[in-house]
Amino acid sequence: MSSTQHALPVTRAENFPEWYQAVVRDADMAEPSPVRGSMVIKPWGYGVWELIQRQLDDRIKETGHDNCYFPLFIPLSFIAKEAQHVEGFAKEMAVVTHHRLKNVDGKLVVDPEAKLEEPLVVRPTSETIIGDAMSRWIKSYRDLPLLINQWANVVRWEMRTRLFLRTSEFLWQEGHTAHVDEADAREHTLRMLEVYREFSETVLAMPVIAGEKPENERFPGADNTYSIEAMMQDGKALQAGTSHYLGTHFAEAQDIRYQDKDGGQTLAHTTSWGVSTRMIGGVIMTHGDDDGLRLPPAIAPKQIVIVPMLRDKPEDADVLAYCRSLRADLVKQSAFGVAIRASVDEKPIKSAEKRWNWVRRGAPLILEIGPRDAAGGQVTYMRRDDLRSEGKVKSAALARDAFVAQAPALLAAIQQTLFDHAKARLAGAIVTGVSDMAGLAAFFGAAEEDDDKGAAFKGWVRAAWSKPTGAALDAVAAQLKALKLTIRNAPMDQPAAVGPCLFTGAPGVEEILIARAY
Amino acid sequence: MSSTQHALPVTRAENFPEWYQAVVRDADMAEPSPVRGSMVIKPWGYGVWELIQRQLDDRIKETGHDNCYFPLFIPLSFIAKEAQHVEGFAKEMAVVTHHRLKNVDGKLVVDPEAKLEEPLVVRPTSETIIGDAMSRWIKSYRDLPLLINQWANVVRWEMRTRLFLRTSEFLWQEGHTAHVDEADAREHTLRMLEVYREFSETVLAMPVIAGEKPENERFPGADNTYSIEAMMQDGKALQAGTSHYLGTHFAEAQDIRYQDKDGGQTLAHTTSWGVSTRMIGGVIMTHGDDDGLRLPPAIAPKQIVIVPMLRDKPEDADVLAYCRSLRADLVKQSAFGVAIRASVDEKPIKSAEKRWNWVRRGAPLILEIGPRDAAGGQVTYMRRDDLRSEGKVKSAALARDAFVAQAPALLAAIQQTLFDHAKARLAGAIVTGVSDMAGLAAFFGAAEEDDDKGAAFKGWVRAAWSKPTGAALDAVAAQLKALKLTIRNAPMDQPAAVGPCLFTGAPGVEEILIARAY
Repeated sequence: MSSTQHALPVTRAENFPEWYQAVVRDADMAEPSPVRGSMVIKPWGYGVWELIQRQLDDRIKETGHDNCYFPLFIPLSFIAKEAQHVEGFAKEMAVVTHHRLKNVDGKLVVDPEAKLEEPLVVRPTSETIIGDAMSRWIKSYRDLPLLINQWANVVRWEMRTRLFLRTSEFLWQEGHTAHVDEADAREHTLRMLEVYREFSETVLAMPVIAGEKPENERFPGADNTYSIEAMMQDGKALQAGTSHYLGTHFAEAQDIRYQDKDGGQTLAHTTSWGVSTRMIGGVIMTHGDDDGLRLPPAIAPKQIVIVPMLRDKPEDADVLAYCRSLRADLVKQSAFGVAIRASVDEKPIKSAEKRWNWVRRGAPLILEIGPRDAAGGQVTYMRRDDLRSEGKVKSAALARDAFVAQAPALLAAIQQTLFDHAKARLAGAIVTGVSDMAGLAAFFGAAEEDDDKGAAFKGWVRAAWSKPTGAALDAVAAQLKALKLTIRNAPMDQPAAVGPCLFTGAPGVEEILIARAY
Repeated sequence: MSSTQHALPVTRAENFPEWYQAVVRDADMAEPSPVRGSMVIKPWGYGVWELIQRQLDDRIKETGHDNCYFPLFIPLSFIAKEAQHVEGFAKEMAVVTHHRLKNVDGKLVVDPEAKLEEPLVVRPTSETIIGDAMSRWIKSYRDLPLLINQWANVVRWEMRTRLFLRTSEFLWQEGHTAHVDEADAREHTLRMLEVYREFSETVLAMPVIAGEKPENERFPGADNTYSIEAMMQDGKALQAGTSHYLGTHFAEAQDIRYQDKDGGQTLAHTTSWGVSTRMIGGVIMTHGDDDGLRLPPAIAPKQIVIVPMLRDKPEDADVLAYCRSLRADLVKQSAFGVAIRASVDEKPIKSAEKRWNWVRRGAPLILEIGPRDAAGGQVTYMRRDDLRSEGKVKSAALARDAFVAQAPALLAAIQQTLFDHAKARLAGAIVTGVSDMAGLAAFFGAAEEDDDKGAAFKGWVRAAWSKPTGAALDAVAAQLKALKLTIRNAPMDQPAAVGPCLFTGAPGVEEILIARAY
């Protein structure tokens, strides 16, 4: 690997989708599995997920939720109870129909005698099964709000899959809450949307726009769906989390009623909200560069990797001892409220290979320690967020004690820099001033240009619309679809007055974001 | 609830199985779900599981393992690859055969056109799918040992289920490792057995006997299976964790080979090991009493619960303020290496009801704070491990500052007391001196006596045997089965010389434990 080339075989500019696959593979994040539509999340990728889980779970608990665990299998009859929900999910579920295999002439087959009376659906989401528990757990207004969360795997059969972004099985958290009335449920829906926004920006260093999804993009069975949308480096939008106000639809279907203060039986109002391993895809496409992944330190399984430059010479022992003692001092320091995660890479491979492994994996600080560093009490380090100068890899040096003392600040600076760059890109790529469909088509270019290599960077359009519903909305969605566009959301942050509708010229009701999307 | 009665509707002596169900229900741990064989783990029960996970995960990582995530679905052909494995698991698996539902005349049904080409089995365990990944990841001896762990849900179809102890779906961790040779793999198998023993005794306060399972109780496909066995309060054994040396069976089936130092292709030796939510059932039956659960503080979601004695009077505000400030001071203290988990129960229900709720849930320290405590700067507390004296609930009082200072020591003392009691029971109930089948039958009584109410406490028999194999072992197992007995394991700790075989009178080879079991 020459330092003026790039560490990946393909650059973002050459072919963005191939670049994405290369990062996932070469950063050792995940790999396709022999099971159609499923992936294997490898140690480095799962380490990122564990750090996401831990830090989001803290926030979910701080907002009053308890974790529970509900069954993986949902009886078909439960799914059938909520009509809109059925419509939305019925087409893509894994169904368990038998509970036994048997040997027939030495071949393992499904035992036809072990057919289930009622087929079981592998949960695509758990509103129905958790609603059933809520109907038992909620007796009086005193039991409300009921605030539940679950970390689980879910399955939605997908024909075209992409690692982390769309797989048949994925990992997520799903929050489910029940409230005395609409006001309380709506407030909670938006509170959790804000938790997602803050988490995404603070922990993932991924700026997002929070807003409400249009009617045609709502969760099946929701009155309102809100999302956070992040901008990837190809200009496409990625929906990174959703929060739903479900009204009383699921409460009616599952009979979630409570005795109110007057002794009457009242339907609860419910919400649900979730984020998934998809967020990791967002992190890759927000922060990755042509050398691989760049991980925000808050979610880097190893924040500081120390590579000893060993040469099979007697001084190797001193170098190793120096590295281990440096690590011991670093892990006593804290960053982001927990002990710094530092490690010495002692694998029996060449140190240049180690360097590029950690560059590709996106370790925030990579230290290369040779005999001169060890003898001189010095640390030579690379910042992954600022790896090259005029194409060449650069490093800096600090006295050992100064480096240890500054490590928390260096990690905080890397986290901030990644966020600032992404924020500047997002802010600079939301275009206003497009006033009609022709302008929209001109801005985004023909759908065919969005080919397999990924379209050139376009950004998003922010424009007013009259918020049509029903058939009028379907017509708008169809027009957009022809350009491979969708309405991402109507940002929470709206101006006092909006211009005319982009689609009809009628008076506008709110501003929306239009983009190509994952 | 009078303080001289018990908080549960049934005692251990009256009906142990019913008592167990009552604890699970009244301690708010879990409940049956409408999905056959599955349970809903409620917040208090899941909180215990999270603490088990966190503390066991630390140990799994300290011993060099990385967490990963592998697919839920396993192709039928993978299961079919290892013959013994098929034999052991083929009879009890959930099988996904279709990937779509559809509406037919308003009724939701499985779409017959969406039949999978190859059925997918919901993982009963992941040796086959992880072995497939290992075959890709392992190229050279430098890649070994490969040390992987997964936290996941698994499904084994069960006809008779009991919450936590045996459910069709359960949560567990499964470790999977590959090694250069038999010696390294065997050493690792025993290392993880020892991790389980230490974890069980230190964190769960549950004493166990570690040993090797007899041939007829091995994991399907293992050369050797080791277990930790705990003694429940009805004298039955509970297998609380297992560790398997798999030889090269799975390596052959999945083609896990590596290039050795001489350039040759060599089969790796693999191990696997797991513990599950079943451990929670063990904790309940080890520590529970007739007032409900008693949780070891290391796994109590709330270690100290403060109940304000409110009377709808003006001094209520002072009492509440005192309780909150006491909590704030307590959570600054550490126990078992992390901040103390203390909380104030401010629910709008009677304080007596709160007291008994927390007694039943097994919170280690329950504080009842009234106006006199608040005014006098005092704390009145109950120790859940020592709740009653001559049938009456007892409490102690300490000055507030002294209580805060002593809280870590009090929690440590409760943890130790629970362990000591269970250890004394275990040590006192392993009987030696039974020398033949007649003696065994006399000791345990007829199988019919082990009725639905649970047998009278019997304990275990420790005796020598000649370690028969094959048909001779089957004959022994059949004799034992007639008495509802099984061989639990051959303890690691063996005497220098053993007596004659209990079953045949031939020279003994090792000592084994014989018991009724869950």
